[in-house]
Amino acid sequence: MDDITGLAALARRYWGKRDTKLILPTNSSLSVTLDQDHLRSTTTSRCDPSFEKDRLWLNGKEEEIKPGGRLAVCIEELRRLRKEVEKKADEPKISDLHLHICSYNNFPTAAGLASSASGFAALVSSVAALYKLPATPSQLSLISRQGSGSACRSLFGGFVAWEMGEKSDGTDSFAVEVAPQDHWPEMHALICVVSDDKKGTSSTSGMQRTVETSALLQHRIKHVVPQRMADIKKAILAKDFDTFAKITMQDSNQFHAVALDTDPPIFYMNDVSRSIIALIVELNRASVAAGGKIKAAYTYDAGPNAVIYAPEGNLKEIINLVVTYFPQADAFKDPFKMFAAGQEEPGKLPLPAGFNEAVAKKFDVGSVKGLIHTRVGDGPRVLGDSEALLDASGMPKTLA
Amino acid sequence: MDDITGLAALARRYWGKRDTKLILPTNSSLSVTLDQDHLRSTTTSRCDPSFEKDRLWLNGKEEEIKPGGRLAVCIEELRRLRKEVEKKADEPKISDLHLHICSYNNFPTAAGLASSASGFAALVSSVAALYKLPATPSQLSLISRQGSGSACRSLFGGFVAWEMGEKSDGTDSFAVEVAPQDHWPEMHALICVVSDDKKGTSSTSGMQRTVETSALLQHRIKHVVPQRMADIKKAILAKDFDTFAKITMQDSNQFHAVALDTDPPIFYMNDVSRSIIALIVELNRASVAAGGKIKAAYTYDAGPNAVIYAPEGNLKEIINLVVTYFPQADAFKDPFKMFAAGQEEPGKLPLPAGFNEAVAKKFDVGSVKGLIHTRVGDGPRVLGDSEALLDASGMPKTLA
Repeated sequence: MDDITGLAALARRYWGKRDTKLILPTNSSLSVTLDQDHLRSTTTSRCDPSFEKDRLWLNGKEEEIKPGGRLAVCIEELRRLRKEVEKKADEPKISDLHLHICSYNNFPTAAGLASSASGFAALVSSVAALYKLPATPSQLSLISRQGSGSACRSLFGGFVAWEMGEKSDGTDSFAVEVAPQDHWPEMHALICVVSDDKKGTSSTSGMQRTVETSALLQHRIKHVVPQRMADIKKAILAKDFDTFAKITMQDSNQFHAVALDTDPPIFYMNDVSRSIIALIVELNRASVAAGGKIKAAYTYDAGPNAVIYAPEGNLKEIINLVVTYFPQADAFKDPFKMFAAGQEEPGKLPLPAGFNEAVAKKFDVGSVKGLIHTRVGDGPRVLGDSEALLDASGMPKTLA
Repeated sequence: MDDITGLAALARRYWGKRDTKLILPTNSSLSVTLDQDHLRSTTTSRCDPSFEKDRLWLNGKEEEIKPGGRLAVCIEELRRLRKEVEKKADEPKISDLHLHICSYNNFPTAAGLASSASGFAALVSSVAALYKLPATPSQLSLISRQGSGSACRSLFGGFVAWEMGEKSDGTDSFAVEVAPQDHWPEMHALICVVSDDKKGTSSTSGMQRTVETSALLQHRIKHVVPQRMADIKKAILAKDFDTFAKITMQDSNQFHAVALDTDPPIFYMNDVSRSIIALIVELNRASVAAGGKIKAAYTYDAGPNAVIYAPEGNLKEIINLVVTYFPQADAFKDPFKMFAAGQEEPGKLPLPAGFNEAVAKKFDVGSVKGLIHTRVGDGPRVLGDSEALLDASGMPKTLA
């Protein structure tokens, strides 16, 4: 039995598949794997002769494993690789046994926080460890990609590229590490949870409508993304936050532009999202106007939540800014001890010099439901037995 | 002295200039001129030996006429044409006299209702009539274009194209009639006034940032707009509302997509605008699902206000739908007597069969501040003396 944590991968988005069954994307993409101390998918998998069928529990609720579905495809592929291991080495024939898999996300599912990406990555990692597969993260990414496209990137920590590949069988469409976590550990992120409502449009159906109807998507794919991919990789390797930030924001905007160019149009950002953009744009404008640098970059995936990237040293100012405009019901959890306990309170400190306060209105409590301060993180971890989600009989502990 | 009303021209947008001084657009565009019984710019112009300088009053407030500014350029051009008239014919030499111009819009200025388009069109028409210029509307559109790009289209009633032209001096960038008002008088429009706040980004500075920074704009201009222009002209000539509606909505979305692809991004639509889109998308979906046709088309210019185009017969249903989700502080002014007085109330009638009520939430009173029901209109009209805005001494009556 093995416990594996996956992780939320949030950043450069992919949108549009050239093959929906194999989940082959229309363009390469890049993501930052975030710290699983703050955002985590934990998965336990086990196989046992007593199990009568493959079963999955997700966040405490049993989910059907549909034959031929994405989950079944991933499990089948992992079994096939286990059989190869069993053929070559003196390993027990566990590939014939049924699997029980139990997974838990500590953040809202289907609210645009990439829960399926981290969930599928954790699942594939967990079963691969159970099966003792001699596979590299890139090889495993070929499997997790077929569960949820973005999941292929979450097999790595740090900064990760999903190379779209060219082959029709998808064997060259996998993730590679651009730089590990410890290359640029100062890269922090503030996640602004704008809504945990179920999304109006699921990523899967939304992106297919964009492929079919957007007149701008093909231009973006062919003539914009490749250069941006090359440029942002270079920026990461050079730890050039200025360039990283510019590309991140421009590409977030362009992703939402092609969503809007879809028929009927898709909107993920709402008035709260727009106001967070206005705050970051003004923060950067005021800084650059005073001879400084770009301080932060916003990015939005398929939902209204903002992820704000910034060097660690800027986070205090950013958190104070966001809380000033979006007062919080609960006290800010300050995992990095940015604010002097008992002396400083986020939202009560002065705004940066030269900041034009009129760029956004001050919202009601609850408009931003929560703030998560995190940073670039590592890849899947094998956890100890004490964190197992299945009990000795192979049933979820949380249901017991 | 002549009084001329201009008109609000709302619909296919132009965005991006290839020459900012001459106001030459990056693409051709199309508009529907709306009925001045409901949306109107009224302008009175007069010249007199007693006037000491050119003066302009706009909505009761005197505005500076900056030397070399857009207004000054228009006036200069009109004077030049008057001088040609005076040279050829036995006409009084009034081109040497100073002008007093008084203009009034009966709708909010700078809130995205094309007030500058109708205002400049009315101004040019008024002075041209005062000067008895033998100019066609297309010739006058060359002048009004230099005041406000969109104004060139408002010199015509009905359905109007602004052909971008190719020449660097702008002499082939003018408006032409696609079809007059009486070709398709059943084309009605419902304007939803979402906000009369001053816009965050003026059209002029916004469109230049888009030209400079959007990676998608050039593709839109070169590869999308020309075909859409040809298709929508054909649809208008054939009175094919289905095609007209599809192109109108897609192009509205794409215009806002390139605004969003601007750096920093430009947002004109807000959550109220998005919800109006959701209502129209669902109205059309339910109709098509039941074997019917597309019932309405939304379009948004550089602001949050929706303009909903529909055949006259659909307006009652549309008004009822909008008022159901956006309750009105004031009773709906019903210029076309859609609702039986004393018996039917907008917002209280049943929604269309099969309409999914969950596509939008019901908003508070005031989210949509007003509704204007209008239709395709005629071009500039010369009004009688009783409607003059200047008194016998050449001063604005409203200030007296």
